[in-house]
Amino acid sequence: MTLSVAILGATGYTGGELVRLLSRHGGVHIAHVTSERYAGQPLRHAFPHLTGTPELICQPLGGLDGVESLDVAFCALPHVASMREVPGLLERGVRVIDLSADFRLHNAETYREWYGTDHLAPGLLAEAVYGLPELHRTEIPTARLVANPGCYPTSVLLALAPLLKGDWIDPSAILIDSKSGVSGAGRSANQEILFAEVEGGFRAYKVEGHRHTPEMEQELSLLAGVEVRIRFVPHLLPQSRGILSTCHLRPRVVRSQAEWRETLWHFYRDEPFVQVLEPGRWPATNHVRGSNLCHIGVTIDTRTGWLTVVSVIDNLVKGAAGQAVQNMNRMFGLEEQTGLEQWPLFP
Amino acid sequence: MTLSVAILGATGYTGGELVRLLSRHGGVHIAHVTSERYAGQPLRHAFPHLTGTPELICQPLGGLDGVESLDVAFCALPHVASMREVPGLLERGVRVIDLSADFRLHNAETYREWYGTDHLAPGLLAEAVYGLPELHRTEIPTARLVANPGCYPTSVLLALAPLLKGDWIDPSAILIDSKSGVSGAGRSANQEILFAEVEGGFRAYKVEGHRHTPEMEQELSLLAGVEVRIRFVPHLLPQSRGILSTCHLRPRVVRSQAEWRETLWHFYRDEPFVQVLEPGRWPATNHVRGSNLCHIGVTIDTRTGWLTVVSVIDNLVKGAAGQAVQNMNRMFGLEEQTGLEQWPLFP
Amino acid sequence: MTLSVAILGATGYTGGELVRLLSRHGGVHIAHVTSERYAGQPLRHAFPHLTGTPELICQPLGGLDGVESLDVAFCALPHVASMREVPGLLERGVRVIDLSADFRLHNAETYREWYGTDHLAPGLLAEAVYGLPELHRTEIPTARLVANPGCYPTSVLLALAPLLKGDWIDPSAILIDSKSGVSGAGRSANQEILFAEVEGGFRAYKVEGHRHTPEMEQELSLLAGVEVRIRFVPHLLPQSRGILSTCHLRPRVVRSQAEWRETLWHFYRDEPFVQVLEPGRWPATNHVRGSNLCHIGVTIDTRTGWLTVVSVIDNLVKGAAGQAVQNMNRMFGLEEQTGLEQWPLFP
Amino acid sequence: MTLSVAILGATGYTGGELVRLLSRHGGVHIAHVTSERYAGQPLRHAFPHLTGTPELICQPLGGLDGVESLDVAFCALPHVASMREVPGLLERGVRVIDLSADFRLHNAETYREWYGTDHLAPGLLAEAVYGLPELHRTEIPTARLVANPGCYPTSVLLALAPLLKGDWIDPSAILIDSKSGVSGAGRSANQEILFAEVEGGFRAYKVEGHRHTPEMEQELSLLAGVEVRIRFVPHLLPQSRGILSTCHLRPRVVRSQAEWRETLWHFYRDEPFVQVLEPGRWPATNHVRGSNLCHIGVTIDTRTGWLTVVSVIDNLVKGAAGQAVQNMNRMFGLEEQTGLEQWPLFP
Repeated sequence: MTLSVAILGATGYTGGELVRLLSRHGGVHIAHVTSERYAGQPLRHAFPHLTGTPELICQPLGGLDGVESLDVAFCALPHVASMREVPGLLERGVRVIDLSADFRLHNAETYREWYGTDHLAPGLLAEAVYGLPELHRTEIPTARLVANPGCYPTSVLLALAPLLKGDWIDPSAILIDSKSGVSGAGRSANQEILFAEVEGGFRAYKVEGHRHTPEMEQELSLLAGVEVRIRFVPHLLPQSRGILSTCHLRPRVVRSQAEWRETLWHFYRDEPFVQVLEPGRWPATNHVRGSNLCHIGVTIDTRTGWLTVVSVIDNLVKGAAGQAVQNMNRMFGLEEQTGLEQWPLFP
Repeated sequence: MTLSVAILGATGYTGGELVRLLSRHGGVHIAHVTSERYAGQPLRHAFPHLTGTPELICQPLGGLDGVESLDVAFCALPHVASMREVPGLLERGVRVIDLSADFRLHNAETYREWYGTDHLAPGLLAEAVYGLPELHRTEIPTARLVANPGCYPTSVLLALAPLLKGDWIDPSAILIDSKSGVSGAGRSANQEILFAEVEGGFRAYKVEGHRHTPEMEQELSLLAGVEVRIRFVPHLLPQSRGILSTCHLRPRVVRSQAEWRETLWHFYRDEPFVQVLEPGRWPATNHVRGSNLCHIGVTIDTRTGWLTVVSVIDNLVKGAAGQAVQNMNRMFGLEEQTGLEQWPLFP
Repeated sequence: MTLSVAILGATGYTGGELVRLLSRHGGVHIAHVTSERYAGQPLRHAFPHLTGTPELICQPLGGLDGVESLDVAFCALPHVASMREVPGLLERGVRVIDLSADFRLHNAETYREWYGTDHLAPGLLAEAVYGLPELHRTEIPTARLVANPGCYPTSVLLALAPLLKGDWIDPSAILIDSKSGVSGAGRSANQEILFAEVEGGFRAYKVEGHRHTPEMEQELSLLAGVEVRIRFVPHLLPQSRGILSTCHLRPRVVRSQAEWRETLWHFYRDEPFVQVLEPGRWPATNHVRGSNLCHIGVTIDTRTGWLTVVSVIDNLVKGAAGQAVQNMNRMFGLEEQTGLEQWPLFP
Repeated sequence: MTLSVAILGATGYTGGELVRLLSRHGGVHIAHVTSERYAGQPLRHAFPHLTGTPELICQPLGGLDGVESLDVAFCALPHVASMREVPGLLERGVRVIDLSADFRLHNAETYREWYGTDHLAPGLLAEAVYGLPELHRTEIPTARLVANPGCYPTSVLLALAPLLKGDWIDPSAILIDSKSGVSGAGRSANQEILFAEVEGGFRAYKVEGHRHTPEMEQELSLLAGVEVRIRFVPHLLPQSRGILSTCHLRPRVVRSQAEWRETLWHFYRDEPFVQVLEPGRWPATNHVRGSNLCHIGVTIDTRTGWLTVVSVIDNLVKGAAGQAVQNMNRMFGLEEQTGLEQWPLFP
């Protein structure tokens, strides 16, 4: 079986990563790629590193009519643009993995509050599955529409799920200090992410509130069984890839460091992509670069009582394109690791 | 008046920065520099960027006998090495600005606990002045021995002092998430700080406990008037210079963002080196690079009640050599800004 | 005496560097700054690192009427825009230091050929002085219009001048392989210079021909007394600042490495900003960062007969703003080093 | 068939890259890895990014006796260390791919001249095959000992082979200006390659002569059929991976840019890893990162007559470990691309 796939928005970083991964997947044929900016041009003009992959000519949005029957579409468009396209794809019988924020929140009102615009397809919100396989594995195989999680939420939810599910921590005192590589800000020209502005220029941003917050709160609330609110502060790293989230938590019980580690290790013992590190070892973003892996470390500070969980992912892989491929594999009954086997690139 | 100064440990990054600043100070003659590794060689062999400064030949430690009368010695040696040298300098009548950790803690037992070795000159601990001019300005002019603060503590204490002094925040819930450039790890060859290990490799380190913690707790306790314990987690940035500290705090009162900003602004309104940013603007490490400045931003998250203060400094300037020069200026009755006037280097 | 100056185009990297340097110059009052993008806003919105400098509000171009009497204007506009403004400034009696390419070439036809547009003020080309003080020092004091050299040409001309002037090398076999930091590409938003495109992505560009070529050929021909053509290939470095030019030359005589070094050393022995390095030491861009210095190394490969000269400058200082200040100092009878005394920032 | 392999020197960057590639090769079992520094420890202590690969415990050198029958050993030791181990391996019947410089030169006297020490196994020099498959494909299948080319030579030879073989250029005027990422300098602690020394610090090094020169001259002479001497100047880039070589050449004939490109394209038209770029496109190191690809661009400067060829590779893949795997594949009759299929990682 070969799946026929489309990638909408193929010339951003997430789109390029989808092509990189799917070109070596083995069970996929990329039938259609879109890009407004590069419409009519071969994809390699946008991504010279993909020179040598099967020739793909970028199409403008809306030209699906002549395209062969599609099994699945990856929607790597900006939010709003995405919810304009998705309903039409579903009507054609194409299953969709949406990498934007448009279908992650189940509540249209919350969407409006954080994204400042009305949702255009609120009827799909109940149906969309939040595509974090480690939490929603059983719902994915039958989903028509999978909402691929945000990069920050992926790093945070993997760090916190075992603790909130087990009722080990105080859900009213969750503080997340996250740091992301610049590729998370996209590929559009913008003075703030020019090389000379970013090199040596670590900074906090959106300290007053980041749009990934409600998505994390929704999933954490589901895990905890109570309404959870978190304080989330993102920062911009002078590096292209990687997210590291430092999660500061208040435990509800007294346990040793070994016991805390055991809780996380046990939760993820059968997961192919989540690794709980040995005691004394801490994650680094270049230890997962280019891979779909998540590394997690944990410690308890007995002086102050704070529990610290640190997780890293590659924001473009486990935080976006890799997780989307993992979802596709699961939607179509393939091994979840298919096409995601390569080890991280270090250094 | 020209001050005659010595720099002990001149070929590490802090030493080089002292030479850079003092060479353009105008009121200083560098009479003596030491380096074990470069003993007998001109300083420019260690620091080609200082080619053209007055010729200085590195001496081994302990060769002060032939040296002209010194007014002040900057001790940029590792801890332990520093407390071996300082008593002898003071006996000669040389005032000392020590940049190591050896004289920052007033309590010899706390020193032993965190540094794992007995203090060799405990009798000097009561006398040493903690050289953060913004907090201890009046004690510095008469000090024989100034303990220059650590880089992390400088960034954290400047962020928190106005809030703890005014009793605005809960001293039992202080959480500091700090990020430092690599130069903070020193200039000794070490696989962990090779370029290829650090590029793209943001990470947390010493999550279980960093030695700068007791120094911060000592000063914060003095400010608050009660014993303060903090949770402090440091991280390593893929950039050479800069520290950014994100301080997460619980307020004791309900106030607006404008009021919180006003508190900080008022506290520092006459300080030459501390700038509280306009609302909506956040500090970045490359906005203070090469300067003795500290930029601070503050906001209150009304959803969760957390107060966030973000500060940045250049770890080698305000976090080390620049602050040492500021202390020297104050010790000898000069304008504090002398030799520290240059604006940051951006980009 | 305090000079009253204007900076046209103050919110690009070169403009910001002019403000940084002139704010600490001591003999200058910045009376007027322009920026189309930030018109009406304080300059610190464009450059937060200049927070604390005297308040400057950006003006649009063309609003000089209410401005106090100006002594000199720095024109840091793009080419073409510059030659639209300069004639009017000169008519007002304002001396001009132009940092664009518009007045560097003496020949309007050559300008048209390389810049693809007619020159709008060809009558000024004969009058404009090419502002490389090391070559044209005597012409600068009386100049109304100084054309500040390009960044690449500064690095190349300083490397080659002693050799071409002395007739030591074959002027028909000059090959220059240059590498520049990204700030040389300006501050306008452009996908090609986003952080994620540049990090780890060293590349050659404009291999078919770069516009700085005729400027170098003009000056090298003057030095050699014959028409000189060079092969010049530029590259883009993953760093913000710095240019390193590797110059490959064919000698006309057999001489030792020490003799070649002596030739360069002798030529620059009285120059404040050019340093010929000791044998065995080679320049690095971070050894001149933030300073107006140029470091040069030279060697002869006896196996193949190639002579190699390597030079480095900070492209924004000696390659732009610093050299402009040096020119201003000379135009107004000040010490050339005034305001340019700080040592490089390393690391 | 599964090949049983050993990796000697597994904890340097090249060794880690061999494990990364071979772990996903499909036809290989890694039976033995050595490391003096990490002897007795799991390999993941040296390379946390390989956490999750089959458990490998590092052994000291010399402990092969208990090891199962080996098909091939990759020798990723420093030079000299390598030629101490290789003869013993061959005697055991193990085929060897040596990644050091020890068996690349056919002439023991040349080795002594450039490496400053006598060759310990000169009898093997005639037998060793220079493992650049694009040039020596037919000799590799039967080789007992393959000398894997240096990183710089790989980038240079691929750029020049079509031109020298076809007698298109003057072999007496070859000038190579190469730039390498820092990982080429190895993983041993060394002040010169610390992050803070390298960031922003592009520089030339070994300008007087680099040891890769004779290796290039040997192969270029074979191609040209005459003795070739080149001028080679290496530089150090502030990035971890990648080599870009700018080759400056004098043509022997007048041809158009399209013709020059055609010559290269035709030479490599059946090669899986070498891509000659479209006119107007130039290689960048991040377009081949993590892959075994080589990108090449070419142009003729009609003003000066210089022909310019620019090539890029990933120094750790096509310049080391990837090429070694390609050689292994060819030695054992596998498809050359096996295990080397992944596309480059960008950004």
